[in-house]
Amino acid sequence: MLNVLKIREKLRNFYIEDNHYGDLASGIFDNDAGGTATLFAKSDGIFCGGLIIEEGFNLVDQKISVELLFDDGTEIRKGDEIARIHGNVRSILTSERFVLNMVQRMSGIATMTKKLNDIIADTDATVTDTRKTTPGLGEFEKYAVTTGGGKNHRRTLNDGIMLKDNHISFMGSMTRAVERARAIQGPMDKIEVEIEDDLMLEEAIRNKVDIIMFDNCSPEWIKAHIGKVPEAIRTEASGGITEDTLRAYAESGVDYISVGALFHQQQALDFSLKVVY
Amino acid sequence: MLNVLKIREKLRNFYIEDNHYGDLASGIFDNDAGGTATLFAKSDGIFCGGLIIEEGFNLVDQKISVELLFDDGTEIRKGDEIARIHGNVRSILTSERFVLNMVQRMSGIATMTKKLNDIIADTDATVTDTRKTTPGLGEFEKYAVTTGGGKNHRRTLNDGIMLKDNHISFMGSMTRAVERARAIQGPMDKIEVEIEDDLMLEEAIRNKVDIIMFDNCSPEWIKAHIGKVPEAIRTEASGGITEDTLRAYAESGVDYISVGALFHQQQALDFSLKVVY
Amino acid sequence: MLNVLKIREKLRNFYIEDNHYGDLASGIFDNDAGGTATLFAKSDGIFCGGLIIEEGFNLVDQKISVELLFDDGTEIRKGDEIARIHGNVRSILTSERFVLNMVQRMSGIATMTKKLNDIIADTDATVTDTRKTTPGLGEFEKYAVTTGGGKNHRRTLNDGIMLKDNHISFMGSMTRAVERARAIQGPMDKIEVEIEDDLMLEEAIRNKVDIIMFDNCSPEWIKAHIGKVPEAIRTEASGGITEDTLRAYAESGVDYISVGALFHQQQALDFSLKVVY
Amino acid sequence: MLNVLKIREKLRNFYIEDNHYGDLASGIFDNDAGGTATLFAKSDGIFCGGLIIEEGFNLVDQKISVELLFDDGTEIRKGDEIARIHGNVRSILTSERFVLNMVQRMSGIATMTKKLNDIIADTDATVTDTRKTTPGLGEFEKYAVTTGGGKNHRRTLNDGIMLKDNHISFMGSMTRAVERARAIQGPMDKIEVEIEDDLMLEEAIRNKVDIIMFDNCSPEWIKAHIGKVPEAIRTEASGGITEDTLRAYAESGVDYISVGALFHQQQALDFSLKVVY
Amino acid sequence: MLNVLKIREKLRNFYIEDNHYGDLASGIFDNDAGGTATLFAKSDGIFCGGLIIEEGFNLVDQKISVELLFDDGTEIRKGDEIARIHGNVRSILTSERFVLNMVQRMSGIATMTKKLNDIIADTDATVTDTRKTTPGLGEFEKYAVTTGGGKNHRRTLNDGIMLKDNHISFMGSMTRAVERARAIQGPMDKIEVEIEDDLMLEEAIRNKVDIIMFDNCSPEWIKAHIGKVPEAIRTEASGGITEDTLRAYAESGVDYISVGALFHQQQALDFSLKVVY
Amino acid sequence: MLNVLKIREKLRNFYIEDNHYGDLASGIFDNDAGGTATLFAKSDGIFCGGLIIEEGFNLVDQKISVELLFDDGTEIRKGDEIARIHGNVRSILTSERFVLNMVQRMSGIATMTKKLNDIIADTDATVTDTRKTTPGLGEFEKYAVTTGGGKNHRRTLNDGIMLKDNHISFMGSMTRAVERARAIQGPMDKIEVEIEDDLMLEEAIRNKVDIIMFDNCSPEWIKAHIGKVPEAIRTEASGGITEDTLRAYAESGVDYISVGALFHQQQALDFSLKVVY
Repeated sequence: MLNVLKIREKLRNFYIEDNHYGDLASGIFDNDAGGTATLFAKSDGIFCGGLIIEEGFNLVDQKISVELLFDDGTEIRKGDEIARIHGNVRSILTSERFVLNMVQRMSGIATMTKKLNDIIADTDATVTDTRKTTPGLGEFEKYAVTTGGGKNHRRTLNDGIMLKDNHISFMGSMTRAVERARAIQGPMDKIEVEIEDDLMLEEAIRNKVDIIMFDNCSPEWIKAHIGKVPEAIRTEASGGITEDTLRAYAESGVDYISVGALFHQQQALDFSLKVVY
Repeated sequence: MLNVLKIREKLRNFYIEDNHYGDLASGIFDNDAGGTATLFAKSDGIFCGGLIIEEGFNLVDQKISVELLFDDGTEIRKGDEIARIHGNVRSILTSERFVLNMVQRMSGIATMTKKLNDIIADTDATVTDTRKTTPGLGEFEKYAVTTGGGKNHRRTLNDGIMLKDNHISFMGSMTRAVERARAIQGPMDKIEVEIEDDLMLEEAIRNKVDIIMFDNCSPEWIKAHIGKVPEAIRTEASGGITEDTLRAYAESGVDYISVGALFHQQQALDFSLKVVY
Repeated sequence: MLNVLKIREKLRNFYIEDNHYGDLASGIFDNDAGGTATLFAKSDGIFCGGLIIEEGFNLVDQKISVELLFDDGTEIRKGDEIARIHGNVRSILTSERFVLNMVQRMSGIATMTKKLNDIIADTDATVTDTRKTTPGLGEFEKYAVTTGGGKNHRRTLNDGIMLKDNHISFMGSMTRAVERARAIQGPMDKIEVEIEDDLMLEEAIRNKVDIIMFDNCSPEWIKAHIGKVPEAIRTEASGGITEDTLRAYAESGVDYISVGALFHQQQALDFSLKVVY
Repeated sequence: MLNVLKIREKLRNFYIEDNHYGDLASGIFDNDAGGTATLFAKSDGIFCGGLIIEEGFNLVDQKISVELLFDDGTEIRKGDEIARIHGNVRSILTSERFVLNMVQRMSGIATMTKKLNDIIADTDATVTDTRKTTPGLGEFEKYAVTTGGGKNHRRTLNDGIMLKDNHISFMGSMTRAVERARAIQGPMDKIEVEIEDDLMLEEAIRNKVDIIMFDNCSPEWIKAHIGKVPEAIRTEASGGITEDTLRAYAESGVDYISVGALFHQQQALDFSLKVVY
Repeated sequence: MLNVLKIREKLRNFYIEDNHYGDLASGIFDNDAGGTATLFAKSDGIFCGGLIIEEGFNLVDQKISVELLFDDGTEIRKGDEIARIHGNVRSILTSERFVLNMVQRMSGIATMTKKLNDIIADTDATVTDTRKTTPGLGEFEKYAVTTGGGKNHRRTLNDGIMLKDNHISFMGSMTRAVERARAIQGPMDKIEVEIEDDLMLEEAIRNKVDIIMFDNCSPEWIKAHIGKVPEAIRTEASGGITEDTLRAYAESGVDYISVGALFHQQQALDFSLKVVY
Repeated sequence: MLNVLKIREKLRNFYIEDNHYGDLASGIFDNDAGGTATLFAKSDGIFCGGLIIEEGFNLVDQKISVELLFDDGTEIRKGDEIARIHGNVRSILTSERFVLNMVQRMSGIATMTKKLNDIIADTDATVTDTRKTTPGLGEFEKYAVTTGGGKNHRRTLNDGIMLKDNHISFMGSMTRAVERARAIQGPMDKIEVEIEDDLMLEEAIRNKVDIIMFDNCSPEWIKAHIGKVPEAIRTEASGGITEDTLRAYAESGVDYISVGALFHQQQALDFSLKVVY
């Protein structure tokens, strides 16, 4: 669920930055010129960003009417009209770019998530995201993942205690790191540990952590070792997992598969705004 | 040239958002634990983001020392050590993620720009970017384009007067749109017009605009028509141009080729931070 | 065209700063006391700031009705009622001061611009502003200049490449400065150079810059030398130009005359708010 | 005394707005080019703004050295070197404009205040300012007034209870307005009332307010009536007072003379920055 | 009187911080689920915070209807329904916590103020607050004091000139401190001095300050010495005054009694939100 | 672990608000007057806020030296010198109030937490806080709880999924609420459910939630029913728990005892700043 006030604040900042001293080109229109435009899809995928379209155009001008024709999470096809925008021409044109930019990114992420999730829909594994979000856009991107059917891993650094290779290296021992983590762990905080080999796996199990992440392990290796993990501990595979290897990971028996590419190899879904009259 | 105060302000916001109530995992270390980490490349490309590394780690802790081993714009190879960071362990680990996220994106853009520019290096055309930047990250991304050897198109909506298809549609006529634009044009503002066919091209030439953009025209079509454009008018090709079609566009005789994919199909360059001791 | 969201953000900040812990004097009224006030002119001039009046009073209280009786850019006479404000007494009085302060400044600038522009209306020159805006109020002031019929020079430091005496001094040579500028010049960026004498003028022409600024040159000197400037290069006069010398500059043949006094010798146009009932 | 953190925050905002996507012209210099510039006066007056020069240049680059040669409040002559700035050329040039703009305004106000105060130096009256400050710059301007030897009237709307004509009109009676004011008056709050004629003067005296403001009354009228005011009540003259009428007001016997022109008819004092080497 | 825009800004920040990446638990409801909740009192006291309830729920969702059943400053009893909130379930639940937190604090302060004020209602003394407000919540807390019938002492450090023991110590002499204060005192600024013994009292009287604060003096001591204070000077008692000693201080003859405990020993008044249907 | 950048940002805002147009009283000192002050305790307790003292005084003036004599979490006695501050007198005095206000609150919370935790130190239960933090001060207060030895419950609404009575009422059934929660639950999110009676307890157990909160249940009732809860589920007692009843709750067998009074019945620990020379 989006934090509406935060989203609105960010959209406002995006608009202000983008227009700065005002949009010169839109200044060619009369102050009261009106018109209608259509926002349509230029490729197939999953739509995400209805709130952005509504809030984006209305931020600058509450009199613009935005008619949304698709809900977040639904499939769209190239050529589909997604929204119809009617009102002041200046207001429509000054808001076009930053709205399109956001909707394209969010729909691109939702589309990729859906595609990945479909590949493993019949397994017990779920696609989750990572913290490799675009700085400043985390809430938009994490929401797009859920729209595509994925799950959100940690949102911020205080969402859980994730002990990675660097934590263990600096601390000198996984067991010591977990002990220190327990001392600060609140009732709602889980502890997750990255493991890379058999010894680490056993140390993690001994420490009764909440989640074990198999970091850069092959599906075969995971399959061969996951039987040791007690039922109370959840498991996650992570590290360079692609569309091609996803299925194998899902079949290795892990609960979660986190895919960094959801955020750092974004393919925006293409949309366009066209004047109707 | 980056606006250092703006960059610093944004990095601070990224850090604050990401840590929110504090980084739980880093809380396992003693307040005064120190160490050294190395930031190294995991793939080949063009490095971009030295300032982000320096400012990013020092924002939270001025006592961290950052030794940068590459300048922005230089080639790096998989395995290269890019920077060495020494200081408080908590400070290093809480800053890791948002620094890596930014540097990966910026280096990805610089790398793609360089690759494209190399393809047309012996022609008179130059790769330029578009305004399809990631909202909130425009200055980082536009800087990355110049680092890779490309040029920046409009930075904001008041950087010049760009009359696109929607402006002309709403106005009803290109000539009228240009006339209105002249009325608000300041001494430093250029006027650019998108054209799609022969009639529009002639109308743009008659109106003596500063730049003509061939929008979604084939290289062949441009080559066949560019001879009509007087020397005083610059030309630009735009619309779905890829690595494969870039060379043909450059040979069509245009001055600028703008590539939206620089921003909306980002492939982050991979970096990692590892504890040294 | 004003960036409405930025304007609204600034007006909000002005209000918050001015009221801080609340307006003590307005606290004498009952919470629901209503009334009507009139905003009228106390001197003749050009009105500018309708949006400020509307947004200013409505920011704090959306139920206040503001009836604007003049459009931006129209002539007003001493005694004219400019706007009628009806609603909650506390809301009207707490917003009075910062609205009046802004409207007085903006109308003062529009009035001076119009006066100057009228002096040279039958010449080919146009009055433009400078970047000597009041910090934080640039967009309000630049808009007031266009309202008075003037043109806007650079809005920010990334609106074009302006090479001034200090750039040339630090660089050591105008030609070298222009060469460096070309390396970073994007398609929408113009290059302007300040010249002070004959040698610099010739160097600027050789470098084919977009605009030549005659800095602190006499109208006679400009008239004697402007013939050398090719048609493709625009010209601008600048430096201590006053109402008295303006006409002579316009007749020297330059395209633009920039007047710093528009911002740094502001004479606010006087307005007042009076209770009607 | 300036609120340093607030001043720094505002200077940062001014810089960020002004540079936005970075200063193109300064981008022509090498990243590490260094130099020295001198900030000198172009007219006689009172200097104000040393903190702005120091903080302004150091905000963006802590390695710039600023040597201030005059203290705030001292007399300067045309040609005087006010400060010497040494360091990175890019940093110096990107900060030049907003620093000069502020120092010019502040010194202009200090100079006018000093000039007015000198006219009445041998009387018991003091020049004070008003709340007609430039929105967003109140603290800079009020400080400049004190630098020129004047006094600050209310800083914000919660600095005291000032009952003006509109308060009295809306309330229907001065006495009732004062009664309501007493109900909310804290220990540190004074009550001031504007009076316009004999009846109002007597009503104000009966109500034992702290200060009586003679609003738009002639010096003669004030002189004729001020004898009625008990010693415990301070008096103030206000309304369209100019350099020419100031002395007469001072001799009328009032304690304070507030001059709106200090802020709304600003004449910036001229300064310039020149490269030394 | 609250500064509505500042209050709204702060409430927005509180909401954004509290929800951060969105409220997970509220995400269980359908996007369009509606309902009604009642906000009721769980103890007796004085209600304060109607604006918080209205603005708080409407910030995130303008379609929520809030029906307020009590005015600020009225007595409420355990079980009283204070407000009825109807609308989107997600919006109601995400706003619940920060609204309740603020209303509980404000009502707690108003209740304590009223209780103290009632104790001395028949004397000439008034309860005032101090500057020991909760950082960031000063305006909410000072408003709550006036709602409970108390007066506000200085709101910020520029509301008056308060010379405390530390000022006098650093300066070396009270008389010198007052002289320096007079030099910067504007027409609306009062001077108050803390005194601790007989000598200081006499020095304060000689200096004709506006207010004398008896700091940590016993009621008996004040009663024995207050006769020396001329009528034109107000008096205040301060320092560890409790419910038990308040009456004695009021009877000592002081005008104001400031109670730091109003802010630093807050007892929130308990409220709860319950689903109606 | 505190988010240092966020803390610094907030302290800056507190200072700016408090000083607004500058601190009048500190203005009596020469610009370069220096001195030393001591910050000492006026009651016994647990110290918390060393970072606030260091950052608070250094924000405005980096040349102030702060010598901290106690670490966070250590016991202090009335009269102990906590810190010695040396530097510019104006800087020391303008920062005094907001630093003291924060340190008093934080130390008050740490002291209360320690006191409560000591009462149950030999049991298996731990004191935890709630989300009833002071708006805007959550991170300071939650940190103070850990300093006193307590644990932090949810920091924000996205830290876990807490299904309270209102969620269940609006949803109509606990089981349905938990099912919906599972659909959005990410790998690091726990689900906690409030129960009030036997039936709810059984429903919670059937739903295999992560934590069961006994809301407003007596210690006796909990003791009688806690045996049913499987080992994998954690338990928490909540609702009006005081110092007097705490021990009984701890002996009932719950893992966590959350105490709202930690935040909404704050007793600030008293500190004072005194001039040394």
